[in-house]
Amino acid sequence: MTLEKVLSTIDDNLPAATERLMELLRIPSISTDPAFHDACEAAADWLVKDLASLGVEARKYPTPGKSMVVGHVGDRGPHLMFYGHYDVQPVDPLDLWERDPFDPEVQDGPDGPVIRGRGAADDKGQLMTFVEACRAWKAVHGSLPCRLTFFFEGEEESGSPSLIPFLKEHADMLRADLCLICDTGLFDAQTPAITTMLRGLLGEEIIITGPNKDLHSGLFGGAAINPVHVLTRILAGLRDEMGRITVPGFYDGVPELPKDIQAQWEQLGFDAAEFLGSVGLSVPAGEAGRSALEMVWSRPTCEINGIIGGYTGDGFKTVLPSKASAKVSFRLVGTQDPHALRKAFREQVRAGVPADCTVEFKEHGNAPASVMPTDDPAFEKARLALSDEWPRPAAFIGSGGSIPIAGYFQDILGVDSMLIGFGLDDDQIHSPNEKYNMSSFHKGTRSWARILAALT
Amino acid sequence: MTLEKVLSTIDDNLPAATERLMELLRIPSISTDPAFHDACEAAADWLVKDLASLGVEARKYPTPGKSMVVGHVGDRGPHLMFYGHYDVQPVDPLDLWERDPFDPEVQDGPDGPVIRGRGAADDKGQLMTFVEACRAWKAVHGSLPCRLTFFFEGEEESGSPSLIPFLKEHADMLRADLCLICDTGLFDAQTPAITTMLRGLLGEEIIITGPNKDLHSGLFGGAAINPVHVLTRILAGLRDEMGRITVPGFYDGVPELPKDIQAQWEQLGFDAAEFLGSVGLSVPAGEAGRSALEMVWSRPTCEINGIIGGYTGDGFKTVLPSKASAKVSFRLVGTQDPHALRKAFREQVRAGVPADCTVEFKEHGNAPASVMPTDDPAFEKARLALSDEWPRPAAFIGSGGSIPIAGYFQDILGVDSMLIGFGLDDDQIHSPNEKYNMSSFHKGTRSWARILAALT
Repeated sequence: MTLEKVLSTIDDNLPAATERLMELLRIPSISTDPAFHDACEAAADWLVKDLASLGVEARKYPTPGKSMVVGHVGDRGPHLMFYGHYDVQPVDPLDLWERDPFDPEVQDGPDGPVIRGRGAADDKGQLMTFVEACRAWKAVHGSLPCRLTFFFEGEEESGSPSLIPFLKEHADMLRADLCLICDTGLFDAQTPAITTMLRGLLGEEIIITGPNKDLHSGLFGGAAINPVHVLTRILAGLRDEMGRITVPGFYDGVPELPKDIQAQWEQLGFDAAEFLGSVGLSVPAGEAGRSALEMVWSRPTCEINGIIGGYTGDGFKTVLPSKASAKVSFRLVGTQDPHALRKAFREQVRAGVPADCTVEFKEHGNAPASVMPTDDPAFEKARLALSDEWPRPAAFIGSGGSIPIAGYFQDILGVDSMLIGFGLDDDQIHSPNEKYNMSSFHKGTRSWARILAALT
Repeated sequence: MTLEKVLSTIDDNLPAATERLMELLRIPSISTDPAFHDACEAAADWLVKDLASLGVEARKYPTPGKSMVVGHVGDRGPHLMFYGHYDVQPVDPLDLWERDPFDPEVQDGPDGPVIRGRGAADDKGQLMTFVEACRAWKAVHGSLPCRLTFFFEGEEESGSPSLIPFLKEHADMLRADLCLICDTGLFDAQTPAITTMLRGLLGEEIIITGPNKDLHSGLFGGAAINPVHVLTRILAGLRDEMGRITVPGFYDGVPELPKDIQAQWEQLGFDAAEFLGSVGLSVPAGEAGRSALEMVWSRPTCEINGIIGGYTGDGFKTVLPSKASAKVSFRLVGTQDPHALRKAFREQVRAGVPADCTVEFKEHGNAPASVMPTDDPAFEKARLALSDEWPRPAAFIGSGGSIPIAGYFQDILGVDSMLIGFGLDDDQIHSPNEKYNMSSFHKGTRSWARILAALT
């Protein structure tokens, strides 16, 4: 059994693999801060060199921002692309870190050893699970299992400004049969997952103006229209009594959950009480009759993310404000069309604005949902491979958040993505004291070896 | 005609009266700023001395804040109290003043000469109209027309913290048959007014808490309740389609406007289009079928004075906020009971808060409306006296704002007030370049002489 040999090689090489990851973690590749530009390039150089040690022909591609690292190897079998990012989040507030974020350390944790440091989970540790799986494969087989493209980005934490132009310019070089992305999480410490539904996002800001200046509510109250009243009425009308969103056509393209996926979800033993209880809540909000898991993974939502108008300091001022504004976002699923919904939303808002008020809109992004083709046999093969590695069977899960990269690969390259990752909810990504469980790193590497074996 | 003699004395002494007012205006009696404490005391001393020159037995009464000035004279006829305040608003932003705010000057204006300087209209100039009327009366008659109590406060612009204790402690000394207050305005430059309806005020702050911390709307959106949604639904529900306020019992004690007052108001020629047009509006808001003037003078209102929740900076954050809050005020009329309404309002809000949210309230003041007894013959006498002085007849008007002093005199002293003033909308009180028209000062002084003659 050569797979067993690859897995045992991974086991034997865990200390060396950990040391390699630590080296990468010591490079402070914060992409949002220009002061760390050189560090980002150093991380890219480190990866080029490490890929070269696997026989991968890799190099940096400069962009107006951080360099992309792309490497190619092999000419047989399916063509798989692997995506990860080498940049990390800023470390503020630094005083909440228990040690230097760029002096990583293996520490004992309540659930076993953890690798602590900025980027350990997001995304350097995850990225290296795939690289280490390839290293072990090559050690056992002398070559990698199929045609592989490695694609590492250095701007993921700063909005990926160079990504779309780069994908467009280098589409031929990057196009593969399937993309593997390692930037997501396990369902829980026992249960691996392939994220196959990513919600899209439509962001809008509404600014309602009534009087041309702030007024005294004693002198004008009752006679002059109050834009906060107008705004609250419009926002309150966005959802009906059953929690359904009232924008005309909103549910066009919203699919019901397939029966087999629903069955998988039910077996996950998702504890809605614990999920909500962790943030002080107990009742699933949103559409009546939908579970909390459905609401975050497979249903579209409308949230007011911010609202402001009038006097908001301490005490009281009897101002009748000139303006009121709100930021509203919609999470999209299935084939909901963000452009059509933006139009319908704006029409609904305009219809609620009385004669004496004006409304202005600001666009804050739009991305359709990504729904992965789980009927492609590769998905079931990967699911079974993951299930072999972990205590509990893997599931195709949804993700409430939006990971735009998968959509870009679909749109620009025509390549579907399989999102498999080994992060946990308590990894503190984007926060002080980020960590990655040694078991995530170890079993994540083993998981990729199994998946490579299954797919090739 | 001794009244004619008093009026011509006022005319002849206008330059001297103006010079006295300028002296008082030069004292920077800003009550909100401790740096000007001595100036406030100097203004009080100036008034004590000036009253003494009229034969009034006056002195300062110390308080924990600024001194009160109280003077008494006479022992015959009705007992009238006159109230004004000697403190002034701060002068910030100083760079918007065209000259030193405490170096007053008589300037030419488009509608005749104006006295420009901080406090010219609010309230030193108004206060001195009454004092100068008394001075002319004494010059002609050798004594003042009736028993008079002068009561000058030095904390009106800083919330009158010493007023209620002082009124309670000195109720016997201050109690009179009627109080005359000169701190309001003309209806317009041609039309004098007695303000007989002052709206009350109930201020509330609502803080709704959902999740125990801010959440990521991707991870929790749809499953976790959003307190901004809850708040907007509650606030939108405070008014019905007809603009009526939905708090149970809200309209208890709201009187319909008496026919005679309504007739007076109709003759005022109030230009709703101009009133609203000045702030960029055109349609009276509030209750359907009510005029703009009714809405600000005689109808109760509900305004959202401030609202905040979630991310309100530039750009967009997909936060699902833990808290949302709003400041809400009600202007009250007639005999609406602020305590009962606070209770009913809170009950209505609580009923709209779902199981997973909590609500907290903060009290921001409550004062019932003041409705003056216009059936007291003194009011009609004063109205006719004013009508003799000005181009157009005087009217009993309402005031959208709240002037709590009249309520305190009613509640603590059992004394009704007649609010007569000569300010104009363009006097820039509380703003840079405050002014008082010379015609307000001159005809205001003559108005008081006529009113004193009519009431005694």
